[in-house]
Amino acid sequence: MSVDDLLQQTAEWLRGEGPMSDVVISSRIRLARNLATFPFLSAASDSQRTEIYRTVVEAASASPLCTGALAVDVEQSDEIDKEVLVERHLISRQHAQGEGRRGVLVSPTETVAVMINEEDHVRMQGLRSGLQLDVVWSDINQVDDELEEALEFAYDARFGYLTACPTNVGTGIRVSVMLHLPALKMTQEIDRVVRAAQDMRLAVRGLYGEGTEAVGDFYQISNQTTLGKSEQQIMDDFGENIIPKVVEYERTARDALAAKRSYLLDDRIWRAYGVLRAARVIGSEETLHLLSHVRLGINTGRFDPFGIETLNDLLMSTQPAHLQKAHGQTLGGEERGRLRAELLQERMAQAE
Amino acid sequence: MSVDDLLQQTAEWLRGEGPMSDVVISSRIRLARNLATFPFLSAASDSQRTEIYRTVVEAASASPLCTGALAVDVEQSDEIDKEVLVERHLISRQHAQGEGRRGVLVSPTETVAVMINEEDHVRMQGLRSGLQLDVVWSDINQVDDELEEALEFAYDARFGYLTACPTNVGTGIRVSVMLHLPALKMTQEIDRVVRAAQDMRLAVRGLYGEGTEAVGDFYQISNQTTLGKSEQQIMDDFGENIIPKVVEYERTARDALAAKRSYLLDDRIWRAYGVLRAARVIGSEETLHLLSHVRLGINTGRFDPFGIETLNDLLMSTQPAHLQKAHGQTLGGEERGRLRAELLQERMAQAE
Repeated sequence: MSVDDLLQQTAEWLRGEGPMSDVVISSRIRLARNLATFPFLSAASDSQRTEIYRTVVEAASASPLCTGALAVDVEQSDEIDKEVLVERHLISRQHAQGEGRRGVLVSPTETVAVMINEEDHVRMQGLRSGLQLDVVWSDINQVDDELEEALEFAYDARFGYLTACPTNVGTGIRVSVMLHLPALKMTQEIDRVVRAAQDMRLAVRGLYGEGTEAVGDFYQISNQTTLGKSEQQIMDDFGENIIPKVVEYERTARDALAAKRSYLLDDRIWRAYGVLRAARVIGSEETLHLLSHVRLGINTGRFDPFGIETLNDLLMSTQPAHLQKAHGQTLGGEERGRLRAELLQERMAQAE
Repeated sequence: MSVDDLLQQTAEWLRGEGPMSDVVISSRIRLARNLATFPFLSAASDSQRTEIYRTVVEAASASPLCTGALAVDVEQSDEIDKEVLVERHLISRQHAQGEGRRGVLVSPTETVAVMINEEDHVRMQGLRSGLQLDVVWSDINQVDDELEEALEFAYDARFGYLTACPTNVGTGIRVSVMLHLPALKMTQEIDRVVRAAQDMRLAVRGLYGEGTEAVGDFYQISNQTTLGKSEQQIMDDFGENIIPKVVEYERTARDALAAKRSYLLDDRIWRAYGVLRAARVIGSEETLHLLSHVRLGINTGRFDPFGIETLNDLLMSTQPAHLQKAHGQTLGGEERGRLRAELLQERMAQAE
């Protein structure tokens, strides 16, 4: 499997399936681990770094979940491939832009990814569509167990798993859920939700994690600290309490918009479609923003020219690196804008 | 004929025919006249005003050009009817909002309109599509002659025709040409054109005359003073010199846009269409603005779903009073916005 093959498929997490998928795009759990027999990366030599890389790749490749996996040597990858992995949420931007021997292993449907030598020696990620933290947890736990059979992780009886950054010490778990909250944005209630989340010491970020804006009404909510709470507590907090509440707010806001002046909602949805269908040059941010409105239309039954599969495909294939990868070359912003518009027209026409 | 009947037809001036109609919407000539036997309106009593009204109506009704004409008692008209007349450029806003006995006579194809008791006792207007000041001049001259057979106009051997406002004294002629200059707007050369026109003591205004903005890239250029120049000089200036030059600038700008980055031009045109086709609520200014882009598309051969007739019909029928007239009632802005969007969708779908 190669990065090229990724473009031929829709990642499981983007399929729009799973519970509450009208609001919840995806559920992610990430575990941070370090090998006990090597120093943290900040203190590791180049040869130690290479040794860590080889050790983890070998152990992970033996894991059944990684059968048929994509293995990418990120250090050797070209810029577009690295960006494709970022756009697919398989590696962090930090990992793409980092230096030295590093890589990622990705399971065939992209539900599991193991980053090697990002901030920690190992960062495992489970990612699925909709709100299904339990399934993701089971995926990731299995990989963790399998890796632990072959590797010795740095663990302290008092603190738990040791990590490069203190906020990850303990369970080393980070749970994050990607939400689509266009109605809360329209009714301006989103600020209240964000503040409430922050009061609960949760981080609220945009589509591509830390430091990114919530373009297209996509929000990531994640826990910030891992010490002092069990994995199960953190997941229960998210899966049974916090996220369902936010989903309920969003659904209520959608109903309110539909009940009050439904034509304003329709106007928003159909104009977005009109522009996406007609533009001859369009940027990725605007595309995301407009696709967000169409997504709302699909999920509220107000839009029917095509379904969620097409929408999700467009969300990914219109991203800059995906566009360039599909065209086999680096393109300037202007050219990307034109090709993006062409792609939108073609795919929409096919789907309709 | 009634105001209702106007809605069933496209005014000749909006048909998009005539020379240079890719840029020139319409040519208008207005003559101001006052009856010698009555004081100017500012000094006239109510009964004198009524007398003037009756005298002019009688004389004008006998004119062959006004056979089958629409005669509107503006004082007695309801708000929507008055606004319909303004939107069709048959009376000035000032005339609609004025007070006292006043009216207008409109020839069947709307090429001639005679306002009574606006600022002057009589203001005759000739109006046709494209650049054809000579034909308009012949229309208006004929009405002027016919009226002069029955009426005695205030005339001074030295100054010429006497008018309420000194800027109209002399020939009492005002020539104005409505231009569609989207390319000059896009290339930002429009400011230079406007300044050049002002240097030539020409007035540059928006779609509805004095004090209106150039919404939708529609500009009216007209002479400001009439004293000291013959009608023929003024018309030659406009018809053979000034306007053809502006038309040439606009055409050059269109070619330049098409040659340089034609996709930007297409993007502008097709996005406008996309929004017009998809919106569920839309204001009249935005509509005008977007129709302007589509018009550019039609006139440059870059847009083909429908032709100039449909476009011109939409330009008029989406105006606030036309919308309300068509629905037989006064409507709030929000309701107009929804009906306008419906109308756009229906008419476009029919035409395509």
